[in-house]
Amino acid sequence: MKTARSCPHCGREVEFYRNPLPTVDVVIHVPGRGVVLVERANEPHGWALPGGFVDYGESCEAAALREAREETSLDVILTGLVGVYSDPLRDPRHHTLSVVYAAAAADPSRLKAGDDAAGVRIWPLDDLPSLAFDHARILEDYRRSLPGAAADLNRRHG
Amino acid sequence: MKTARSCPHCGREVEFYRNPLPTVDVVIHVPGRGVVLVERANEPHGWALPGGFVDYGESCEAAALREAREETSLDVILTGLVGVYSDPLRDPRHHTLSVVYAAAAADPSRLKAGDDAAGVRIWPLDDLPSLAFDHARILEDYRRSLPGAAADLNRRHG
Repeated sequence: MKTARSCPHCGREVEFYRNPLPTVDVVIHVPGRGVVLVERANEPHGWALPGGFVDYGESCEAAALREAREETSLDVILTGLVGVYSDPLRDPRHHTLSVVYAAAAADPSRLKAGDDAAGVRIWPLDDLPSLAFDHARILEDYRRSLPGAAADLNRRHG
Repeated sequence: MKTARSCPHCGREVEFYRNPLPTVDVVIHVPGRGVVLVERANEPHGWALPGGFVDYGESCEAAALREAREETSLDVILTGLVGVYSDPLRDPRHHTLSVVYAAAAADPSRLKAGDDAAGVRIWPLDDLPSLAFDHARILEDYRRSLPGAAADLNRRHG
């Protein structure tokens, strides 16, 4: 889609192509405890999966590792692809497309909120707080993607 | 990443954010025959999965159905997510990120190349032509994602 914005020098319109903005989100599952969520300091408020924009020249996998580290201080390995979420209305600010990975933390005790976050916490999958964007749906899809018996056990044990 | 280009009116630099460009590709598997590939009329030449850019305001799933129809004349249903391919070097022209779906065609007999293509054909998974971009890897990942016995049978029967 073509869109236009004003040249900051002459004020006339400069046309450019507009694309959905690629992002990544990471479901860091800590065995027996639940998933790592970040409390957003900025609008829209609420809890959310750690994640952010993919940089030009950066793979989605590299972006996922970087965002996990920046927002939770955790080094993670990626264990699977949860899905791709691209509904144009999923973010009220602009059209984003999120590639969502499942991940495991090397050392969950290092969990610490990044500078952009109001807080960070591990939440049991069956007792999640109010979530921003479509992250409630993502976590429901994640839980349903687990093997049947594992999902039941996780519900009891985190 | 910030980058700049020249204003077409005053020639001075206008800064804007540059993101990887989201695309979709579709593995349309025709039972007993193989996968639908499009012969590219433009650079880079070679055969490729049907696919293209995701429009702003369009979901990846909608883009996949649209591109399949435009490039192969086939109406398809999406049957799964093969993966997300985002190596910055996967396309020599710019950094693209491709969301790849598996799909089935409602009526494979309607197969017909779109205006942009030099040709379109169904290729057996074990006898693929020279493929553009990272599409050989995508198809290898697709084949490996099939249940073990199914992959063997498909190798013999397409």
